[in-house]
Amino acid sequence: MMNSFLRSLQLTTPVIQAGMVWVSGGKLAAASANAGALGTIGAGSMKPDLLKSQILKAQSLTKFPNRLAVNVPLLYDKCEEQIQVALDLGIKNFITSAGSPKKFTKKIKDSGAYLMHVVATPELAIKCQEAGVDAVIAEGFEAGGHNGRDEITTMALIPQVVDAVRLPVIAAGGIADGRGIAAVLALGAQAVQMGTRFVATVESSAHPDFKNAILKARATDTMLMMKSLVPVRLLKNSFYEEIKKAEEDCASKETLAQILGHGRAKKGMLEGDLTLGELEIGQIAGLIQNVPTVDELIRQLKVEYSQARKLMEWT
Amino acid sequence: MMNSFLRSLQLTTPVIQAGMVWVSGGKLAAASANAGALGTIGAGSMKPDLLKSQILKAQSLTKFPNRLAVNVPLLYDKCEEQIQVALDLGIKNFITSAGSPKKFTKKIKDSGAYLMHVVATPELAIKCQEAGVDAVIAEGFEAGGHNGRDEITTMALIPQVVDAVRLPVIAAGGIADGRGIAAVLALGAQAVQMGTRFVATVESSAHPDFKNAILKARATDTMLMMKSLVPVRLLKNSFYEEIKKAEEDCASKETLAQILGHGRAKKGMLEGDLTLGELEIGQIAGLIQNVPTVDELIRQLKVEYSQARKLMEWT
Repeated sequence: MMNSFLRSLQLTTPVIQAGMVWVSGGKLAAASANAGALGTIGAGSMKPDLLKSQILKAQSLTKFPNRLAVNVPLLYDKCEEQIQVALDLGIKNFITSAGSPKKFTKKIKDSGAYLMHVVATPELAIKCQEAGVDAVIAEGFEAGGHNGRDEITTMALIPQVVDAVRLPVIAAGGIADGRGIAAVLALGAQAVQMGTRFVATVESSAHPDFKNAILKARATDTMLMMKSLVPVRLLKNSFYEEIKKAEEDCASKETLAQILGHGRAKKGMLEGDLTLGELEIGQIAGLIQNVPTVDELIRQLKVEYSQARKLMEWT
Repeated sequence: MMNSFLRSLQLTTPVIQAGMVWVSGGKLAAASANAGALGTIGAGSMKPDLLKSQILKAQSLTKFPNRLAVNVPLLYDKCEEQIQVALDLGIKNFITSAGSPKKFTKKIKDSGAYLMHVVATPELAIKCQEAGVDAVIAEGFEAGGHNGRDEITTMALIPQVVDAVRLPVIAAGGIADGRGIAAVLALGAQAVQMGTRFVATVESSAHPDFKNAILKARATDTMLMMKSLVPVRLLKNSFYEEIKKAEEDCASKETLAQILGHGRAKKGMLEGDLTLGELEIGQIAGLIQNVPTVDELIRQLKVEYSQARKLMEWT
């Protein structure tokens, strides 16, 4: 039985490869589309020209252009231009986040595209429904990168969002294998969005040293930091220690912003500076032990999913 | 198919009713045992004499005394005496927490009882296995009450603990219905421990106003506080606001301990002071909409569990 979300997006696997800054360009998105998942280009780190070239690249590498999406964080000043670039190139799926779900819903829906918005509370999911969004991606506290302020975890968030709205719910945060997919489908999600797991694939543009850092990470090696500024979950390193010390000393937002500086995520995730870079990954990194191709990953997820369902027979 | 944990404890439902301060006495534990779950008396808030009377009460109210357990937080100075009282009365199941899994393992195992220890990281689960503990209860960040310092959520924690040890793993934190049970069984857990859900049952000794507060709570209404002292998840109220302000002002441990004072949890959870009491509940409170008997609750969980498994058919 294929659920309504998978039918709408013509996916053969209930997986969205997350759009992430610096690591999810056209190559990764095309590989995900080819494997039956939704392949997302993370526009957050791209100027409109770069986004254009990455979309063209993705479209040239897949026979399934309808399985491509663009993720647009609404906190950047170029976000409207990014949306226009993607619409002009025929992108059929959008994921918006970090802003009001009302802002670009009409523009995107009027073009005939499918719109998902990222939420961290049931209340925001209800606002998305009222705004006319097609589906919500409910992301828990354990997820890597930018995160909500209410610290609701995937296990607690998914059933409460499912109960709050009629829209399809996609679960994100803490999922990196077929067991995780089975778990959130049982909670009522129709699909998952995975980020950290896709960073450690052959086709991601993450620096090889960053991919290796994910393989070495343990469950206890990430923490949600900079809550007074913009909460972000990152791998513990020297940069983390500096932020931690400042927060323990009750540093002001201004001091934190100064320590953060500019280009930290690029430095770490794309350029491989594991000491001073900002390495955005989720708590589930501890589970990741290999760097497969996306195709190998999706095959593996299906095997694990079937095994997980057998675990559930307790009577 | 009944798993090894359920067989060992002679349970007919994969549920541990959590031992909690002030709300889980002999009446609740007996009701849980009668319904096929493990019924736990929370010794944390009891002097040895009171524990003795609550164990005798539970034993008098059930034909399944082997389904009774005592939860002993090892941070209290009377914990050894509590364990002795329970052993002398023939209690066959123990849950220890907040201390070294080595401390009382030999004493408890030598008596022939079954021992579970609460863990918040895969590393501590490995130590439990080395110490000879029978099973681990892996509790995520979303759980109510006392909590770990590494903030690992149930979704991220369970598969990583399952992969780290050969012991049965029981999942706790963020679970209040049959969907949650199905989800963590898919992650590899053999059973669940539920706390908040059991507070809002007829047989719990929580104050009626506290039960009502759980019905009204939303997903965003709890927060993990007092991390520098002992991290505890609680419902937002005036007491929470006072702690929050102190923490924003970088208050010392001593100042926080002074604000906390003594008897806060009793005041809130047993006596019903919703303003100044410490109300320990988990993020999943937002899902809870009724105050059933334990028997009604367990029947409902089974129906929901079967429905959840049907949600998982995506191909």
